[in-house]
Amino acid sequence: MRILLLNPNTTSEVTALMARVLAPHLPDGTTLVPVTGRFGARYIASRTAATIAGHAALEAYAEHGHDCDAVYLACFGDPGLLALKELADVPVIGMAEASCLAAAKLTERFSIVTGGERWGPMLREFVTVMGLGDRLAAIETVAPTGAEIARDPDSAIALLAQACRVTAQRDGAGAVILGGAGLAGLAARVQPHLDIPVICSVEAGMQAVLAALRDPPVKPASGDLARPAPIASTGLAESLAALLARS
Amino acid sequence: MRILLLNPNTTSEVTALMARVLAPHLPDGTTLVPVTGRFGARYIASRTAATIAGHAALEAYAEHGHDCDAVYLACFGDPGLLALKELADVPVIGMAEASCLAAAKLTERFSIVTGGERWGPMLREFVTVMGLGDRLAAIETVAPTGAEIARDPDSAIALLAQACRVTAQRDGAGAVILGGAGLAGLAARVQPHLDIPVICSVEAGMQAVLAALRDPPVKPASGDLARPAPIASTGLAESLAALLARS
Amino acid sequence: MRILLLNPNTTSEVTALMARVLAPHLPDGTTLVPVTGRFGARYIASRTAATIAGHAALEAYAEHGHDCDAVYLACFGDPGLLALKELADVPVIGMAEASCLAAAKLTERFSIVTGGERWGPMLREFVTVMGLGDRLAAIETVAPTGAEIARDPDSAIALLAQACRVTAQRDGAGAVILGGAGLAGLAARVQPHLDIPVICSVEAGMQAVLAALRDPPVKPASGDLARPAPIASTGLAESLAALLARS
Amino acid sequence: MRILLLNPNTTSEVTALMARVLAPHLPDGTTLVPVTGRFGARYIASRTAATIAGHAALEAYAEHGHDCDAVYLACFGDPGLLALKELADVPVIGMAEASCLAAAKLTERFSIVTGGERWGPMLREFVTVMGLGDRLAAIETVAPTGAEIARDPDSAIALLAQACRVTAQRDGAGAVILGGAGLAGLAARVQPHLDIPVICSVEAGMQAVLAALRDPPVKPASGDLARPAPIASTGLAESLAALLARS
Amino acid sequence: MRILLLNPNTTSEVTALMARVLAPHLPDGTTLVPVTGRFGARYIASRTAATIAGHAALEAYAEHGHDCDAVYLACFGDPGLLALKELADVPVIGMAEASCLAAAKLTERFSIVTGGERWGPMLREFVTVMGLGDRLAAIETVAPTGAEIARDPDSAIALLAQACRVTAQRDGAGAVILGGAGLAGLAARVQPHLDIPVICSVEAGMQAVLAALRDPPVKPASGDLARPAPIASTGLAESLAALLARS
Amino acid sequence: MRILLLNPNTTSEVTALMARVLAPHLPDGTTLVPVTGRFGARYIASRTAATIAGHAALEAYAEHGHDCDAVYLACFGDPGLLALKELADVPVIGMAEASCLAAAKLTERFSIVTGGERWGPMLREFVTVMGLGDRLAAIETVAPTGAEIARDPDSAIALLAQACRVTAQRDGAGAVILGGAGLAGLAARVQPHLDIPVICSVEAGMQAVLAALRDPPVKPASGDLARPAPIASTGLAESLAALLARS
Repeated sequence: MRILLLNPNTTSEVTALMARVLAPHLPDGTTLVPVTGRFGARYIASRTAATIAGHAALEAYAEHGHDCDAVYLACFGDPGLLALKELADVPVIGMAEASCLAAAKLTERFSIVTGGERWGPMLREFVTVMGLGDRLAAIETVAPTGAEIARDPDSAIALLAQACRVTAQRDGAGAVILGGAGLAGLAARVQPHLDIPVICSVEAGMQAVLAALRDPPVKPASGDLARPAPIASTGLAESLAALLARS
Repeated sequence: MRILLLNPNTTSEVTALMARVLAPHLPDGTTLVPVTGRFGARYIASRTAATIAGHAALEAYAEHGHDCDAVYLACFGDPGLLALKELADVPVIGMAEASCLAAAKLTERFSIVTGGERWGPMLREFVTVMGLGDRLAAIETVAPTGAEIARDPDSAIALLAQACRVTAQRDGAGAVILGGAGLAGLAARVQPHLDIPVICSVEAGMQAVLAALRDPPVKPASGDLARPAPIASTGLAESLAALLARS
Repeated sequence: MRILLLNPNTTSEVTALMARVLAPHLPDGTTLVPVTGRFGARYIASRTAATIAGHAALEAYAEHGHDCDAVYLACFGDPGLLALKELADVPVIGMAEASCLAAAKLTERFSIVTGGERWGPMLREFVTVMGLGDRLAAIETVAPTGAEIARDPDSAIALLAQACRVTAQRDGAGAVILGGAGLAGLAARVQPHLDIPVICSVEAGMQAVLAALRDPPVKPASGDLARPAPIASTGLAESLAALLARS
Repeated sequence: MRILLLNPNTTSEVTALMARVLAPHLPDGTTLVPVTGRFGARYIASRTAATIAGHAALEAYAEHGHDCDAVYLACFGDPGLLALKELADVPVIGMAEASCLAAAKLTERFSIVTGGERWGPMLREFVTVMGLGDRLAAIETVAPTGAEIARDPDSAIALLAQACRVTAQRDGAGAVILGGAGLAGLAARVQPHLDIPVICSVEAGMQAVLAALRDPPVKPASGDLARPAPIASTGLAESLAALLARS
Repeated sequence: MRILLLNPNTTSEVTALMARVLAPHLPDGTTLVPVTGRFGARYIASRTAATIAGHAALEAYAEHGHDCDAVYLACFGDPGLLALKELADVPVIGMAEASCLAAAKLTERFSIVTGGERWGPMLREFVTVMGLGDRLAAIETVAPTGAEIARDPDSAIALLAQACRVTAQRDGAGAVILGGAGLAGLAARVQPHLDIPVICSVEAGMQAVLAALRDPPVKPASGDLARPAPIASTGLAESLAALLARS
Repeated sequence: MRILLLNPNTTSEVTALMARVLAPHLPDGTTLVPVTGRFGARYIASRTAATIAGHAALEAYAEHGHDCDAVYLACFGDPGLLALKELADVPVIGMAEASCLAAAKLTERFSIVTGGERWGPMLREFVTVMGLGDRLAAIETVAPTGAEIARDPDSAIALLAQACRVTAQRDGAGAVILGGAGLAGLAARVQPHLDIPVICSVEAGMQAVLAALRDPPVKPASGDLARPAPIASTGLAESLAALLARS
């Protein structure tokens, strides 16, 4: 079984970090196919970068996804998620989507702690569209971006733990998601500082991917996430154009 | 790994049906511990029966759950779910909860098809409290109860398929949950009649249990689903009283 | 006219306290029939205890409610409320339900002050299901449980008054409910410290019961709160089993 | 005890009809003080008429309310309700407000049947601001206005019963409010045609007034419904100007 | 083109202030017809005053609106807005309505800063009925009323700028509306103190009026804002009675 | 004044059609700068195509927007809207955004009629994120896509008028938006068949652009739509990369 690990930003070090953190979670016979966005911002910390990343994710899937059994869209905020679900015939899991659904099993109200302040309103919208807005206690952003945290994780632990404690107490959160590719693996180090569950978004997404592989859902042939009607295009990567054009 | 398969109604045939349907899904080294409610209605098709079943579920857990690694609350509508999550130190998964979260990964709006008309308003409330109310296309109840369907599944297939088709077209659902212990295993027989995914609630719950076993979350020590403060009680099964009294 | 005063926890002192506080409010020809739960936690301050109490309330009604003209479910949080409404042929009023509806007549946004922190998320869900979530300014829980307040009310007055003032100012509440059986009669002593209405939940529930007695509504014969279809059961108190089985 | 029965439209026959229907419900020692709006539309069936009626209700209160113990704003849709609550020192009850709160005790989802199609969107807004939007199954308007129904009630019974049945079945309503002053007393004649409770809005409002008289709430001295700060005015009835100017 | 500048309070100085501020924004060939309410409170800072102002606005329109091409209801909170839209055949724009829609184009979440604390809950309701409740970051009221600010604007600038900064930082607002006729023209003086857009409600309303004049919408002949059915009335200004009676 | 007319699909005939329809609406001294997406689907009728179009819109702005005074994102559904608002220093108006805000001024509940069934769920999400979900009566999609309608508008008139009438009557809409670039100019031809306003989305967007030009808002320097922090990128058009990198 092959899993497309799709990092839609353009920093391959982040892709590699995730592959490293995820390796011990891979069952036998399962392979990660790590892919980094071909174009776009180094890190995604704005609506502009996220919009470009949506296209990059689709292209990456078109280029590298053909023989994969599942797609893991591994950027917290999930740029292009619903389009990928529409386009792909295999299960597509988003990191933020999976993390929020995992948190919803553990508590009535969860919080998200992540890096980069612009993600606050962007994630609030994401959770609202998911329908889980009433179960979101708060989004707490810390000043360093996910990318900066990834470069110096040791000094981020105390900061993240403090943000988690603040939202647990102030907002009554019963679980906290550490959101972001750059925070891969840090939840285990933050957990000892907290008495509620701390969820690693990278691992939560992976668990959802593995669950989908074990019990693959039927691809809808009608409805809003069915394959779109074929359409001609221009200026796209050949592989992506072919996917749009297939009947 | 032992999974408490907790059927909170008092019909052991339904427990057995579920155990039979779930057996092929059990990984090596995993055992089901099937338990049926000690008291309550034969089937749960009213608020009265569901309220009693909440208590029965807690008692069944207290009696039989001590050496289990996870609890599967296997009644669609999940009576006692949040109390079990509070009380137990191991992961607790509800059948309706897991089914709705599974459906939410597949489509923007899903429907539930189940037996017994009183479940309509009861499930609408359940989904609202889950926060997924905006993603629920409709609840379509068919006249036979889940129990009646379990006794004569063959004649129910056409009825269920029709109900699924109706809600897919009329309400724009992109996936349908066949909800109810009595409908265990029928989704596979209904699926060929539909072009959107049909989810078996019994299997969806099991997948969530297995996922929780692979990646067991930390039990919260504070917040709304932490273990409750110890309290004296009277008139309860000894095992349940002991759980309430532990510090 | 007989009113079943149904305390679903198992502490008869709380039942007696409520009967004492309510006595002066009883019109001529009206009798209280006080009943305490036969089984369950001493006090209800967790989801576990509330779930058990739902069953205890149904049994208490089945045992003692047969010649009553109304049921007063006298535990703030109303465990088993909708099931009781479904099962009983006479009006059933919950203490939290009545208090919230009373507050809604006095102000656009009300707060609840109660004892026991676990009630925060439990009551938020209750008010949401009632549909009044947008009119709830805040739930302010004080550290002692309702039971502890009942044992030493004098020292609780200042604490409660302070909690009321905080939510009035911080959250813009226009009325405050003092919620909980253990707080029976304290609103009158807290009111002088506040310039907005302070509602005694025990008395508010009683007023609603008396109103229902004066103008008894028709029992619905269809819809979600009609009597449930008859069903066999096992292991229940004989009286409750008989109610479930009646046609 | 004197109750200001305030009909804010300008048709005194409707006021008289309500007084007649309400007379048997008056406890000893309680007097109705019926008042009809001095200015405005004959009947209220538009936003324009309702807006004018809000002012008329305030003036009628200022002119006739000084020695009353409660105010009954007896027009379904409650023009001027919150302003009256703010201005008056005695309890103010609106007919639609009381009816919706009464229905909310009987069922999870209620419907409103009333005359005059423009009331559909007007009442939907009213119920939304009350916070009960999620519990409203539907508003079903029949073609004749409340005024026309009042003039020929006999021929309206079948029409109203049919509208009630439609919304009970199509929308799953568990109770129906017959809304409108002109429909006073008709619920008792419609009830036999239905198996769910049919609520007379005129009587439901009266019950709430009587409840408020028995247990009069404190007038808030702060918050959104406290007496407004004194303000000079021009062109108003002397009595209303005096109320605005009082400190 | 003539624009009815309708100030529904009774202080003509405020009308004059707005006319002065708006003059430079008038295109050639466009005339303001300033009108002040004939009756009601000097300033509108309560539900009582707002309710009366709704009637005053309708009368002012009936008296002075006949040859106007658009109506500008120039009181933040828009008393009588929907009734005016229903009654008038020309476009009607409310100051708060237009300001909120303008803010919604600039940011995901906006705040309102205005004078007079009672406006807090009144405006929250207004924005909720508009449907924009989820995009309202906060309403921040400052102690002086709009009227007091109008009399001494210089000393209000610092206060208003501070309130804007507070809500920008604490609530994450991306734009702030300075709401109120009395604050006309102050946004330009507050803007330099802030790094997000500060919207003058008086000017925002005017822009919407001018847009409506350039592209006048069709008056609906059915639906909730169509002209109401003709109705007799009593006690109204002759012009208003005539509008109600026209077929 | 120069307006970037940004068509993010790749069919220049649609761009030309809009330019032709908009020409008579251009004031003196205002120029349209029509641009068509460089890459992507011919028409946008899926999430996949819309996601790609978001990137295409950003690139088109970067390439051609530098000396424009406003941006008109002229595709109903507004792919990339918030990212463009973030990135650009001049006002950005989306066609669906402007149409919905225009409709909200005319009625309490509006409907959208458009071509291409996949737009149903996509637009429902769009309107929800706008916050106007409660004011949306319905989205009615007709079978031909906007592109097909553009090619043969004559035969579409009856179909569109019928869809408008259906939603007006069935859903109580008080105004209808004809949504889509391909439907440019058809509202005027559909209007005579309806008695409620029919809004041309192309013209409604243009009016909002002109209003923004007359009264240009301040670009926020903080908050969620401020210019994003500079970031390096790879693989983008040089002009877009420069915009991302600017400090």
